[in-house]
Amino acid sequence: MSETVKQVEQEFLEYVGKMSAYGEALSLIFWDLRTGAPKKGVEQRSQVIGILSAEVFDMSTSDKMGFFIERLSEADAVGVISEITKKTVEHCKKEYERNKKIPAEEYKQYVILQSKAESVWEEAKEKSDFDMFKPYLEELIETNKRFITYWGYEGNKYNTLLDMYEPGITVEVLDQVFGDLREKIVPLVKAISESSHKPDTSFLFEHFPKEKQRDLSIEILEQMGYDFQAGRLDETVHPFEITINNRDVRVTTKYDESDFRVAVFGTIHEGGHALYEQNISKDLVGTPLCTGTSMGIHESQSLFYENLVGRNFHFWKKNYDLLKSYAGGQFDKVTLEEYYRAINESKPSLIRIEADELTYPLHVIIRYEIEKGLFNDEIEVKDLPQIWNDKYEEYLGIRPDTDANGVLQDVHWSGGMFGYFPSYALGLLYAAQFKNTMLKDLPEYDELLEKGELKPIQEWLTHHIHQFGAMKKPLEILQDVTGEGLNAQYLVDYLYEKYQGIYQLN
Amino acid sequence: MSETVKQVEQEFLEYVGKMSAYGEALSLIFWDLRTGAPKKGVEQRSQVIGILSAEVFDMSTSDKMGFFIERLSEADAVGVISEITKKTVEHCKKEYERNKKIPAEEYKQYVILQSKAESVWEEAKEKSDFDMFKPYLEELIETNKRFITYWGYEGNKYNTLLDMYEPGITVEVLDQVFGDLREKIVPLVKAISESSHKPDTSFLFEHFPKEKQRDLSIEILEQMGYDFQAGRLDETVHPFEITINNRDVRVTTKYDESDFRVAVFGTIHEGGHALYEQNISKDLVGTPLCTGTSMGIHESQSLFYENLVGRNFHFWKKNYDLLKSYAGGQFDKVTLEEYYRAINESKPSLIRIEADELTYPLHVIIRYEIEKGLFNDEIEVKDLPQIWNDKYEEYLGIRPDTDANGVLQDVHWSGGMFGYFPSYALGLLYAAQFKNTMLKDLPEYDELLEKGELKPIQEWLTHHIHQFGAMKKPLEILQDVTGEGLNAQYLVDYLYEKYQGIYQLN
Repeated sequence: MSETVKQVEQEFLEYVGKMSAYGEALSLIFWDLRTGAPKKGVEQRSQVIGILSAEVFDMSTSDKMGFFIERLSEADAVGVISEITKKTVEHCKKEYERNKKIPAEEYKQYVILQSKAESVWEEAKEKSDFDMFKPYLEELIETNKRFITYWGYEGNKYNTLLDMYEPGITVEVLDQVFGDLREKIVPLVKAISESSHKPDTSFLFEHFPKEKQRDLSIEILEQMGYDFQAGRLDETVHPFEITINNRDVRVTTKYDESDFRVAVFGTIHEGGHALYEQNISKDLVGTPLCTGTSMGIHESQSLFYENLVGRNFHFWKKNYDLLKSYAGGQFDKVTLEEYYRAINESKPSLIRIEADELTYPLHVIIRYEIEKGLFNDEIEVKDLPQIWNDKYEEYLGIRPDTDANGVLQDVHWSGGMFGYFPSYALGLLYAAQFKNTMLKDLPEYDELLEKGELKPIQEWLTHHIHQFGAMKKPLEILQDVTGEGLNAQYLVDYLYEKYQGIYQLN
Repeated sequence: MSETVKQVEQEFLEYVGKMSAYGEALSLIFWDLRTGAPKKGVEQRSQVIGILSAEVFDMSTSDKMGFFIERLSEADAVGVISEITKKTVEHCKKEYERNKKIPAEEYKQYVILQSKAESVWEEAKEKSDFDMFKPYLEELIETNKRFITYWGYEGNKYNTLLDMYEPGITVEVLDQVFGDLREKIVPLVKAISESSHKPDTSFLFEHFPKEKQRDLSIEILEQMGYDFQAGRLDETVHPFEITINNRDVRVTTKYDESDFRVAVFGTIHEGGHALYEQNISKDLVGTPLCTGTSMGIHESQSLFYENLVGRNFHFWKKNYDLLKSYAGGQFDKVTLEEYYRAINESKPSLIRIEADELTYPLHVIIRYEIEKGLFNDEIEVKDLPQIWNDKYEEYLGIRPDTDANGVLQDVHWSGGMFGYFPSYALGLLYAAQFKNTMLKDLPEYDELLEKGELKPIQEWLTHHIHQFGAMKKPLEILQDVTGEGLNAQYLVDYLYEKYQGIYQLN
């Protein structure tokens, strides 16, 4: 080619800019579908999603993309192309190779399988009938195993799946940190369930009108530093955050009039995701790096706000009166201390998404151990309900009554998402580890919460994490911020200190 | 090429399906931008619009499109390709030729000019300073004249512009019908302004809460047959209808708490547009024919509902109690007759978009006469304010006090939209002519309104107009439905009968 590297770089950036524009259109379509698109239009809309997604996929695996990757990886490109271009090329290369290695026909079959499996799972869950879902799950796992042979793996087959959601995180890392975590948490959970000093939660469930919850949610988001000029809050059945572009980062929440916690903590959680996206450097706009770097780091930001801010005593010292002003008389006879203990109740439960912050990691660890076993041929699908239930009994002290409340509860596997679950617990681990470092820079952390001054906290997170988008890999961020690798001790210390206090275990 | 016609047809339909998918994404983006997209995200969003629009434009003028048009227009294609494909090819061919004939650089300059002119116009209107806008308007007209030489014309240069919005409508047709209309309406307007029997409108402007207006709007839309499973109602500064796809046809309205008419008649108007789009045959989905056939026919449907249904005495005989149930005591001492006369008040005014159904056509005719003069070198831009004001005085009996209230009032010219205005009055003419035919099939029209049974009316319109989308040209529809060409007499008769009654002119 006679083009200079600079020219190729320019063309490449335009090319990924176009992919990113299609991505923005798709994001808006998804947001719209979940916030009130008319039912009857959905069928045609699915066609549009199919066409736009196929276009993005084709662009990511095209010969042109192949050319860009090759040319911009050559020796003479070093030092000529920008750092952002370099990282963008790396990102595209990874995707290119991953997608190219699967024969088109096999991938097509897999997409069909996913879609079938999801609808079968839905029915199986409803009927609590694992056998119905079993053959699909087997085929999903077999297909993913075959894909792993195409993609290759290092150390452990499951690593290749982990890498899709949390690049750099391996079985070796997880065995260590999840092992530490489980070992320390299981006895704490047990101690709590035996504690006689349990919080009274009865006052949480009084009628709290939706509009009041909405106004409160908006006020809390503003306090967090969420920019409503670059986002909006809507209502959906399942709360989520979605980035249309990084100046248009939307959140949704759910209002349960007999449990205000759903909206308040849901909003804070999604708000944490949104702060990450709103504060990515504008230099990354139009590239695939203009997003959170991984599922786990993303979750660390939402959980930081949900747990380390939103369930912190000092946060409510500031906001309890605000809460009371929106509620009816619900909290009139409840002290701040009682309220704080109530919203931090910990209790073993069967359903992951309803779990509290202490028991939550155990739900994830169970899934991790099972997935690892499945992909290393140590566990067979047919044995899953038994293994699942045994692990719940062992770690949480309770046994699922049905498969709907056990192995069938989550949608992930039906969509072929193996390797995803660990991110949820990694979010908790990262968050606690970040907080430990943050305290060195912001020793007045608790006072800031008490004053409702959350800006320095957001600025710290932006400076150390948000701004980089996907320019840095998860463990690179962790190392740069905290000076060490992943270490479960920070989360363990945090949970012990907090829950020993609440349940008076000392 | 060795491909069979059938294969080419299949590829062509996929190709236009893709264009239509991009169009759907763009429509959703526009809807979103106007219904609450966060401000700060708009800049990046504009990039996305640019990229997607350019893609659609490129596809419409590509060599591939050229090949499709050529191959599918050949003799051996006749009888092989479907009627829908044939009309789609015609549609694409027209666009292809129109776009191909403008040199790319000139078109680019024109787009820049439009964008500059719009912002200058905005300021000029604010300052009521025509001289500021004059050079831009001159250049816009010069450019369009040059484009007309590229495109060619038949009969009159202005015909080429008319054809963009109302295919088949020519200066010859408009001179005839607008001439007839003006001649008949001007004396009626004069008689009304001299009538001593004017309606009392004072009671219209009492406080009517927004939420109540919203609930009323929804009820009226439902009565009209608007399908809320295939649409939704939102609030915007300027009401509009937008088609995402033909099972997702959205309307918006505006709530003025001291003038409920804004929402009620605005909603009915946009609802009329929406009924057209919701009832296009599903066979046309994914083609460019799945939309209203022209601006004028579209406007005929919205105006049919707004005026011939919504301002009809019998419609309110059914709905006056409903209105009262949503309003406060506003109408307690107002008889149905008084109410009916009030909402049909006619009064010469300076601003087109605020005009009533009788004086409205005169606003349009003035613009038509001026545009025709400009493109036939009979009027110079510098003389526009004078000519404008003289015409208002002659036809409406009032003279604009400022250019902001005169020649600068509309945005259209600043965007280079010449030939568009006539559609508005054509809508009124078509509607009255359709109604005349409809009465032969549905002589019980007024009774249907009185019973709130609007279904047969919508079905009639769907059967004769809606279902065809853009398969038929405007005058083809008119001929097929009414058995004749455009005839101003129907509108004249309707207006005379109605306003002679209201103002007791006999």
